[in-house]
Amino acid sequence: MKITVLGCYAATPRSFTNPTSQVLEIKNHLFLIDCGEGTQVQLRKNKVKFSKIRHIFISHLHGDHFFGLVGLISTFRLLNREKELHIYGPKGIKEVITLQMKLANSWTNYPLIFHELSSKEPELLFENEKVQVKTIPLKHRIYTNGFLFSEKPGDRKLLINEAVKYNIDVSLYKSIKKGKDVISEDGEKIPNRVLTADPPPPKSYAFCSDTVYDPSIVPLIKNCTALYHESTFLEEQQDLAFPTKHSTARQAAAIAKEAEVKLLILGHYSTRYSNIELFLNEAQTIFQNVVLADDGKEITVEIPQ
Amino acid sequence: MKITVLGCYAATPRSFTNPTSQVLEIKNHLFLIDCGEGTQVQLRKNKVKFSKIRHIFISHLHGDHFFGLVGLISTFRLLNREKELHIYGPKGIKEVITLQMKLANSWTNYPLIFHELSSKEPELLFENEKVQVKTIPLKHRIYTNGFLFSEKPGDRKLLINEAVKYNIDVSLYKSIKKGKDVISEDGEKIPNRVLTADPPPPKSYAFCSDTVYDPSIVPLIKNCTALYHESTFLEEQQDLAFPTKHSTARQAAAIAKEAEVKLLILGHYSTRYSNIELFLNEAQTIFQNVVLADDGKEITVEIPQ
Repeated sequence: MKITVLGCYAATPRSFTNPTSQVLEIKNHLFLIDCGEGTQVQLRKNKVKFSKIRHIFISHLHGDHFFGLVGLISTFRLLNREKELHIYGPKGIKEVITLQMKLANSWTNYPLIFHELSSKEPELLFENEKVQVKTIPLKHRIYTNGFLFSEKPGDRKLLINEAVKYNIDVSLYKSIKKGKDVISEDGEKIPNRVLTADPPPPKSYAFCSDTVYDPSIVPLIKNCTALYHESTFLEEQQDLAFPTKHSTARQAAAIAKEAEVKLLILGHYSTRYSNIELFLNEAQTIFQNVVLADDGKEITVEIPQ
Repeated sequence: MKITVLGCYAATPRSFTNPTSQVLEIKNHLFLIDCGEGTQVQLRKNKVKFSKIRHIFISHLHGDHFFGLVGLISTFRLLNREKELHIYGPKGIKEVITLQMKLANSWTNYPLIFHELSSKEPELLFENEKVQVKTIPLKHRIYTNGFLFSEKPGDRKLLINEAVKYNIDVSLYKSIKKGKDVISEDGEKIPNRVLTADPPPPKSYAFCSDTVYDPSIVPLIKNCTALYHESTFLEEQQDLAFPTKHSTARQAAAIAKEAEVKLLILGHYSTRYSNIELFLNEAQTIFQNVVLADDGKEITVEIPQ
């Protein structure tokens, strides 16, 4: 599981920083999360293959999280995309994208499928045999969702030497990986635990931006492997955090600690700060395992040994 | 008069090229012409003062000419702009910008004034004592206008030594600059031509993008000082130009020649070409005074001696 941070600064794009967008690589999927202005250029700079993106998740309709979406959709068309593209985002997103295509008389040649969200309860957005994606309802100035991306437990790992030793037919391997015991040719039961090892534990990634400090999300993100939690401000500016419905680095760390996540990733820094190390220092006063997002940074998500 | 090219490539933004946008500095005005995605970052990189932009002209509603507009409007708000902003563009532009502000619940604190265009005849958009701006109706796949920016003739230049020699009262200088003769204290008429010199001849700039080759625009841009004419293709790809309603470099040069402009500026190059010098060479086979637009380039418009 790998996160490529395309942009992680609040508010306006600047010469050297970009508004929110990330690519999550999980079980052979490339999920794009948010799409601020300039995202398509950031995708190019980070050599992300456009055609591999089939699902885009938009947290909310503030410009720094979605003004790059219409351009990306348009570029996909110009690149002769054929594969369908799924857009998950707040109600209204279909109207605003469709209106722009109508005014430009430029409709996509590929299927563009909107999944508009309006529920204030967690919802399952996507699921297959390997991955699922759920919303994490957040409290911000407008309707906003975070997203929880979870790997499903994989098959058990076949111990091939043991399988050979017991002379087990290859046709049974698939069911053994699913956890089945085996009856050998002489009628003896070979327990599954002899033939397999535990699969790697499934990982999960919670993206929470933008949001005020809100401990009610803790049960939804409990024990997740990595949590991206916005930290627009430092505690010094905490008087700005609540009225703008944003969080401080310390508040993000408090959520991480309470949820017992393995790794906290900070981002969505207000552009007023020139030294983002201050966010790291502040968060680490209450939660140790923190990394700072930064534009172009790749973060590999692993379960600590 | 100075043009700062923020972006001059067709279609999609790429790592090192930008879609259409220009700043025209004319008689103390900064006019922004088109606003592709990334324009606000290009404005920053080129150190253009945001607050000096009070008029934005949008040629048409294809994404590479206007997807950056909503973000720029939003950034002006975040920068606490107070001055009014005028947007001139095709009908529909108000709806699409307003919808995005509504969805984000982020209204501007400054007056945002839309001037929606739908006429197929040339229209006067803006005029004061020094400058006027008119539309140049263009033929493209959707409703499109070019823009003609014209300086008005300035006051005559007072020859201060002559004025002193004739002992002329300072209170008369203003009327002398306007062309009036003077009666001296002893009743002698001093003709204006003795006291003044011609003002610098007024300059004009025609922005024509996007457009198919269309000689019917020639009377509208006749003798202009500088003409920016799109050249999406080279003649080698002229089979693509007409169906997509674009022009070749040679066609742009033919318009420049026919209109007897002083300078032709080429741009809106298809991203298929890696060497834009080819556009210069092709155009110069029929019109000599050509410069290539390029991102970040500043072009000073002067009347040749």
